[in-house]
Amino acid sequence: MALLQLTTIPIGTATTSVGSYVAEIQKELEKTNIPYRLNDMGTVIEGNISELLAIIEKIYEIPFEKGAIRVVTQIVIDDRRDKKVGIGDKITAVQQILAGS
Amino acid sequence: MALLQLTTIPIGTATTSVGSYVAEIQKELEKTNIPYRLNDMGTVIEGNISELLAIIEKIYEIPFEKGAIRVVTQIVIDDRRDKKVGIGDKITAVQQILAGS
Amino acid sequence: MALLQLTTIPIGTATTSVGSYVAEIQKELEKTNIPYRLNDMGTVIEGNISELLAIIEKIYEIPFEKGAIRVVTQIVIDDRRDKKVGIGDKITAVQQILAGS
Amino acid sequence: MALLQLTTIPIGTATTSVGSYVAEIQKELEKTNIPYRLNDMGTVIEGNISELLAIIEKIYEIPFEKGAIRVVTQIVIDDRRDKKVGIGDKITAVQQILAGS
Repeated sequence: MALLQLTTIPIGTATTSVGSYVAEIQKELEKTNIPYRLNDMGTVIEGNISELLAIIEKIYEIPFEKGAIRVVTQIVIDDRRDKKVGIGDKITAVQQILAGS
Repeated sequence: MALLQLTTIPIGTATTSVGSYVAEIQKELEKTNIPYRLNDMGTVIEGNISELLAIIEKIYEIPFEKGAIRVVTQIVIDDRRDKKVGIGDKITAVQQILAGS
Repeated sequence: MALLQLTTIPIGTATTSVGSYVAEIQKELEKTNIPYRLNDMGTVIEGNISELLAIIEKIYEIPFEKGAIRVVTQIVIDDRRDKKVGIGDKITAVQQILAGS
Repeated sequence: MALLQLTTIPIGTATTSVGSYVAEIQKELEKTNIPYRLNDMGTVIEGNISELLAIIEKIYEIPFEKGAIRVVTQIVIDDRRDKKVGIGDKITAVQQILAGS
């Protein structure tokens, strides 16, 4: 089970705004059954690696379709095979450590 | 005004767990006045760049002090000078785009 | 045409060494026709996005097959549709700017 | 001893080109004694963490001074305390593994 954070950064667009691309990506994710959460630096999606790469393939083109001609895409995947870790679980674990210390 | 996401990844530790390092980093952040938020991939802190780099200098050594001997640290800074964007603001902006579309 | 940098970081392995995983990834890349180059932070491969994601799918499991149970994978893709940029081209472009300035 | 990779991505600039920022960063690095190497995804510099953060503070503002109003800066630091690893050493290590296998 893995968590993937996707960050989309267009270069050479007319404005400094990126929100419209992110919103479009969310609309696509909404059509799937995959859990996701927007954070301050990107969109986190949860699944096994083949599900995640299939999703990336689907949403990767969105900024280009909306007119961007150069895009830097950052992907960070945290994949562990020793236990199931979903969206929010790592935050809860840290809070429990802090509460117990 | 910038947002900085910090992700700390120890290599060669006895366990697959990273939460204790993250908890320790939060304790240090709690001693400052800097706004921060934990997300699924790291800790986001908010400030101007000199404040942020000073914080990084302070918390960078924590995993080593706790015994790690190799650490990969990922930092992503989103810095804009055209308007003030704090923690949560980009998420709200996307939600407003989605609500209006 | 895009460049993709892949960085593989195992967590909870017995040693601080990562080179054996990287070597195995290179062996797999060697079997393909895709251009690649190892740098100080990862492996850069060149192709269009569907080629690149197909390669990632193939090499992603290597650290797990070699025994890792938690792996953080960083991927950065620089994709531009306005011109063809291959491995080494951006470095050459910067050198030309420096030589001309 | 650590290696740091810096990647600078301006948002909302008139063109898709980033090379002029990178060239300016190199000129600043050239004034220091710090080892550095440009790769396909960024600039790698070598030093201990306090040297590296001091360098970052110095070169961070360059894109803004050149007119950018929003910049995403990616920093990856690979810091190990068990042995000295300089620019190029990890590449050599992988080549040795491959040559011996």
